[in-house]
Amino acid sequence: MGPTNHDIMDITATAEERSVEIASLKTQFASVRERTVNICTPLLAEDYAVQPITDVSPPKWHLAHTTWFFETFVLKGFLTDYKEFDPTFAYHFNSYYNNAGDRVIRSNRGLMTRPRVEKIYEYREYVDECMVSFLGTHPDHKALEIIQLGIQHEMQHQELLYYDIKYILGHQPFFPVYDSNESSDKPTSSGTFDWIYQEEGVFQIGHSSDSFHFDNEKGCHKVILEAYSIASRPVTFGEYLEFMEDGGYEDFNLWHSDGWDYIKKQGITSPLYIHKISGRWMRYTLSGLVEVDPNDVLIHVSYYEAWAFAQWKGCRLPTEFEWEVLADKLDWGQVWEWTNSAYLPYPRFAKAPGALGEYNGKFMVNQMVLRGASTATTVGQSRKTYRNFFHPHLQWHFAGIRLAK
Amino acid sequence: MGPTNHDIMDITATAEERSVEIASLKTQFASVRERTVNICTPLLAEDYAVQPITDVSPPKWHLAHTTWFFETFVLKGFLTDYKEFDPTFAYHFNSYYNNAGDRVIRSNRGLMTRPRVEKIYEYREYVDECMVSFLGTHPDHKALEIIQLGIQHEMQHQELLYYDIKYILGHQPFFPVYDSNESSDKPTSSGTFDWIYQEEGVFQIGHSSDSFHFDNEKGCHKVILEAYSIASRPVTFGEYLEFMEDGGYEDFNLWHSDGWDYIKKQGITSPLYIHKISGRWMRYTLSGLVEVDPNDVLIHVSYYEAWAFAQWKGCRLPTEFEWEVLADKLDWGQVWEWTNSAYLPYPRFAKAPGALGEYNGKFMVNQMVLRGASTATTVGQSRKTYRNFFHPHLQWHFAGIRLAK
Amino acid sequence: MGPTNHDIMDITATAEERSVEIASLKTQFASVRERTVNICTPLLAEDYAVQPITDVSPPKWHLAHTTWFFETFVLKGFLTDYKEFDPTFAYHFNSYYNNAGDRVIRSNRGLMTRPRVEKIYEYREYVDECMVSFLGTHPDHKALEIIQLGIQHEMQHQELLYYDIKYILGHQPFFPVYDSNESSDKPTSSGTFDWIYQEEGVFQIGHSSDSFHFDNEKGCHKVILEAYSIASRPVTFGEYLEFMEDGGYEDFNLWHSDGWDYIKKQGITSPLYIHKISGRWMRYTLSGLVEVDPNDVLIHVSYYEAWAFAQWKGCRLPTEFEWEVLADKLDWGQVWEWTNSAYLPYPRFAKAPGALGEYNGKFMVNQMVLRGASTATTVGQSRKTYRNFFHPHLQWHFAGIRLAK
Amino acid sequence: MGPTNHDIMDITATAEERSVEIASLKTQFASVRERTVNICTPLLAEDYAVQPITDVSPPKWHLAHTTWFFETFVLKGFLTDYKEFDPTFAYHFNSYYNNAGDRVIRSNRGLMTRPRVEKIYEYREYVDECMVSFLGTHPDHKALEIIQLGIQHEMQHQELLYYDIKYILGHQPFFPVYDSNESSDKPTSSGTFDWIYQEEGVFQIGHSSDSFHFDNEKGCHKVILEAYSIASRPVTFGEYLEFMEDGGYEDFNLWHSDGWDYIKKQGITSPLYIHKISGRWMRYTLSGLVEVDPNDVLIHVSYYEAWAFAQWKGCRLPTEFEWEVLADKLDWGQVWEWTNSAYLPYPRFAKAPGALGEYNGKFMVNQMVLRGASTATTVGQSRKTYRNFFHPHLQWHFAGIRLAK
Repeated sequence: MGPTNHDIMDITATAEERSVEIASLKTQFASVRERTVNICTPLLAEDYAVQPITDVSPPKWHLAHTTWFFETFVLKGFLTDYKEFDPTFAYHFNSYYNNAGDRVIRSNRGLMTRPRVEKIYEYREYVDECMVSFLGTHPDHKALEIIQLGIQHEMQHQELLYYDIKYILGHQPFFPVYDSNESSDKPTSSGTFDWIYQEEGVFQIGHSSDSFHFDNEKGCHKVILEAYSIASRPVTFGEYLEFMEDGGYEDFNLWHSDGWDYIKKQGITSPLYIHKISGRWMRYTLSGLVEVDPNDVLIHVSYYEAWAFAQWKGCRLPTEFEWEVLADKLDWGQVWEWTNSAYLPYPRFAKAPGALGEYNGKFMVNQMVLRGASTATTVGQSRKTYRNFFHPHLQWHFAGIRLAK
Repeated sequence: MGPTNHDIMDITATAEERSVEIASLKTQFASVRERTVNICTPLLAEDYAVQPITDVSPPKWHLAHTTWFFETFVLKGFLTDYKEFDPTFAYHFNSYYNNAGDRVIRSNRGLMTRPRVEKIYEYREYVDECMVSFLGTHPDHKALEIIQLGIQHEMQHQELLYYDIKYILGHQPFFPVYDSNESSDKPTSSGTFDWIYQEEGVFQIGHSSDSFHFDNEKGCHKVILEAYSIASRPVTFGEYLEFMEDGGYEDFNLWHSDGWDYIKKQGITSPLYIHKISGRWMRYTLSGLVEVDPNDVLIHVSYYEAWAFAQWKGCRLPTEFEWEVLADKLDWGQVWEWTNSAYLPYPRFAKAPGALGEYNGKFMVNQMVLRGASTATTVGQSRKTYRNFFHPHLQWHFAGIRLAK
Repeated sequence: MGPTNHDIMDITATAEERSVEIASLKTQFASVRERTVNICTPLLAEDYAVQPITDVSPPKWHLAHTTWFFETFVLKGFLTDYKEFDPTFAYHFNSYYNNAGDRVIRSNRGLMTRPRVEKIYEYREYVDECMVSFLGTHPDHKALEIIQLGIQHEMQHQELLYYDIKYILGHQPFFPVYDSNESSDKPTSSGTFDWIYQEEGVFQIGHSSDSFHFDNEKGCHKVILEAYSIASRPVTFGEYLEFMEDGGYEDFNLWHSDGWDYIKKQGITSPLYIHKISGRWMRYTLSGLVEVDPNDVLIHVSYYEAWAFAQWKGCRLPTEFEWEVLADKLDWGQVWEWTNSAYLPYPRFAKAPGALGEYNGKFMVNQMVLRGASTATTVGQSRKTYRNFFHPHLQWHFAGIRLAK
Repeated sequence: MGPTNHDIMDITATAEERSVEIASLKTQFASVRERTVNICTPLLAEDYAVQPITDVSPPKWHLAHTTWFFETFVLKGFLTDYKEFDPTFAYHFNSYYNNAGDRVIRSNRGLMTRPRVEKIYEYREYVDECMVSFLGTHPDHKALEIIQLGIQHEMQHQELLYYDIKYILGHQPFFPVYDSNESSDKPTSSGTFDWIYQEEGVFQIGHSSDSFHFDNEKGCHKVILEAYSIASRPVTFGEYLEFMEDGGYEDFNLWHSDGWDYIKKQGITSPLYIHKISGRWMRYTLSGLVEVDPNDVLIHVSYYEAWAFAQWKGCRLPTEFEWEVLADKLDWGQVWEWTNSAYLPYPRFAKAPGALGEYNGKFMVNQMVLRGASTATTVGQSRKTYRNFFHPHLQWHFAGIRLAK
């Protein structure tokens, strides 16, 4: 996924059951649009507008940007008589589609107090109504494809909303509760530890069926892997605290050179949201400040930290291919898992023309692949071929560690 | 004044008419507290929380900080049984009083989405009620002095609110209107230009009466001035546009070395809020985007710009003493006027002990004095001995130029 | 290679012909030590000490650091009675071996005017003599391995010396000549352009013989490649100028997101050392400023530029595996060629214990692999399995482009 | 003086004894030119070229720049047939005279390894010979004035050379000795401490005689001062260590707001060149590392530190006027003494036209005045009206503290 990186879907399905497909899309559309609003319900108007760091977008912006996507690529793309909700919104809520025109630069999103939140909810309602009408006109296959993409795009932003809301609230002086029942950032322990072994062999990688997927998963191809083992479950807080208490953040031998420079310059000595208060390890969660349970799954580490931890353990991180091959035997879906694979194109990858082509290819440098899914991932979006990616220094997304050897 | 710099009052008045004084303070208190709220009325909840640059504080913060001042120095200072509204507020809304405890660092004020605006209005009401009760108990002279200071302090923040609100709204992509009738940032032309001449002589400088004043105005003392002349009115936009069109921003001979480096590094080529749109000079005001009227008084220049303009004119800026001596003959009160005096202590200046002593002395380096007042200055706060001060590169406050020779 | 990144050699050769091996090492040692000095001969004392950017080390530093390597890992490692030349040198000339003790931080190397150049030449002579003596004592296999590594290490620094000297001289105001006969940065045209085709298949990757190689080439393993084609020769200046003149640096569609941000922030609009003077494209070389010959091989581009150029051409960059498989059919050795492979470990990669283990593993993030060699590469160091690596934004090393599809 | 700030002389002397004046200038010229070379004699070629921070210029640059001054303003200005030594030198060695053409930007002076030191000594000899010839032609008054200015200018650079050489050597890892007999940075104790009292009154300020002075001293004018006292001698290291050991660097109440931010951001906890080694306070001097003698005069403090120390002592710093009025009764000339006066123009100050007019006016913002002289000040350049100036955060020049009350 990446901060706001997504992918072009690739529906090659025949259109014979178009009506069935449309009915299904209508349901999905209604459901995803409602869920985005629900995620924001616990917020105050003031929470919607801030951008504490460039990587974190204001919740208001997510609400509007996901709507702008449907307006721009569906309504304005397919309806000649569509009347824009507000012509200034295109400028406000374009994320990074250079081809779709000028836009507010990313680091300035937090300056936009206007348009106000209320107005953005009106925008959502207006576009939702237009979309429902449009879906009633039996749109062609190309339109349906883009609608499907817009739904997946919004799912991705739902997960980003969790990351960003947590960052905003987690940096208030007194750790406010988002929702006392929220559990999306509290993956819990997942059974005993085992090494799952895989013989060497030739394996198929990438998405091969007709179901929805992004273009970075396409290019189904074979790889040769040597024999390897992967841990049956992700690393826990208990295991990571041992690393910390053993001086892991002070031993340069465990770190990449870039990683060491980064943690020293930034003064990083623990995963994000971890605080030692009165001698106890506490962590901020969306349901408030809680004591760290050693059995809980570790969350909020960077790739640098994941790699250093693996070094300390005498292990390594799996490649994305090793991960995918054994996925069916692993317990995954609690945290995104850093792999030791750089985010690069599969064979035959080619970017689509125009603005939607900016989805993926241009992010394929300097980032590492994460596999799996987190407890904040929208249901229906996780699959074993999904390639998520982030820069190696980032901690604010819901990422943890799985070991290999 | 400075971003949030103020001064200890110096009431040496006898207490014989204490009742009269208290009645007067009650009225002033009610009036100033109401006006602050009124200034914020046109804002949306989202406008209250942002901090686009470190110098600009969120309006919410001003509302709470001025209240915190009364709570901390009056209610907590003089009432043993006072019950704090919320113990976390002291941390949130202390500005720079190191002696008054830990606080949110200045550049992070814009991260505080909590406490919400509504809560801050409750805070104001709570403290207002407590203050009214307290004033009913015939507090002693020391308490009255601090209340008086708190009132003046809030007046200063009223003017800062105008600066900060303008900055926030003026950096939205589409120039929203704060209030279409607002005129506080639209000083208008003030008659014909004359040189007012003053013979050399010995003059008295500083505040000498019993009326309210800050400690940086005290230390009434004599200075010797050589003969000089001061312009009868401030510089207009028309005059400044000539400077711009004559290449003023490209001729290093006109600038201080530090000033030249600054404008080149920042890419500054005009006063703040000036835009050339479709070939016309426009400016953003609190009542919206308007065309520049050459007769309007120039506003939003830095000291560097003021000095360069004076060089270009073959004139200079007056010293703060020259300004004060001729004040009664000048037309002033439209914009703060940069002087060529550095902000330094008057003879016998001494800072008060404790937190209130942090008011002034610690700002007496690297800043230049401005004299006069602006159309956004609260009535009752302008007087000819008032010493305002800002760093020489700043443009966001309501400052203009008066020439001398 | 990387700025100063190298690898542990892996000599598993039997020691039966130890004497032959030692004789050969003596010759190699003498030859490589002499060549380093020769590279510096055209320099003035003043040229030896500067460090214009962090990536560029002062030539003096290279001279001393390569000597320090032999002193630290050979003489001090194997001789109990070795007398250090100067105990402060260990601090001065350790590069990044945290395990080998404290050191001058990298960005401060240019502050070290002391010890003077003359002293460093004395240091070299002292260590050379000790090394020759030591080689006369029939050292054991382990020592010979490290001497071999030291020789390869110095060869790598010879190439870095060319990069750094060029950077230092190329940033003087008047383009001084290093040596009017120097041709190491002037790769010339290499015949006609062809696409070399390769059928899909399974291929062996990595170093498999007993000859010298670094540990990052080890881990010989199989990969599956789909059918592909590679250009028979690298891109020329003529081809790249077309890209520039077609607006390549202004079309964001051609760039990685990180690449676009980087070139815009840095104002990069051409390869390094290219200047348009009086309407003609000129380039700085070690033999002085010369006009760009369109037939010359392109040199001094970053990975970002290489990738953007390939996009513009409708092609792509080869992976390092594609490159290695076809290496015998390509014309290479003029410039290092950016591949589309991230620098990551081969299977079974494990770092050596202690200071020498810092050689490679810790650089395996955020860098891209380059294959081939440049005209500045020391003879005997180029081989088709050699994995060079640099951060994707760097231009100062001798890198160019080879296309694939 | 400021890093390289100087002033136009103002010789209004009649020309009747022109020959005497010329003879005197010849002697002065020879003497000052020789002394500059002598100051550099202990340096190695490598020491000449580095620029560890922007404020510090390479010694080579000083040697050339002072020569460039005579070449540009005298030889090229008055001799139509003068043949430049090297036309590229004007670009290399112009300091900040925008009117005198393009130049190497200040922060890049340390990149210039070329022209080499030897060449610069040739340049000096060439210009010296031409100057001697020119002086033999009985030049007119205007030329003599500029020669006089060039001599004073070079004296200023002599003192800067001491500052810069000390900075360069003092930042080598092992504290090299410049000259074991050097004492220019070792002011010694100066008798017992007394308060010198001055009644209030009207005093004359500024240079009033015909002897050489800069234009910033002109504008002789009257000031009124209230009664005050000044310390008979500057602060010693012993006194300052008490301040340090009393937690002076940890008590924000003692500091300017800007000063506090600066020392915290930079991690400053002592004057420059002070090191605690094995429990003892040591300081780096041009004659090597020595233990701090409590009786020695304090040196290498910023204005911020001077002000904080005075606060801690319950005193203040004198204004430049208070200093000048009592100068004849003080023991001064060991270190430059920070005053509490900002560097601003005297009445009737006006800058000269053209390049020489860039001497002073453009530095009159953001800097504080220092009075007195240091043990590194060239003989003949110290006088009680001399106004030196530096930015308030700088420590590398030879500055100390004198108290007032």
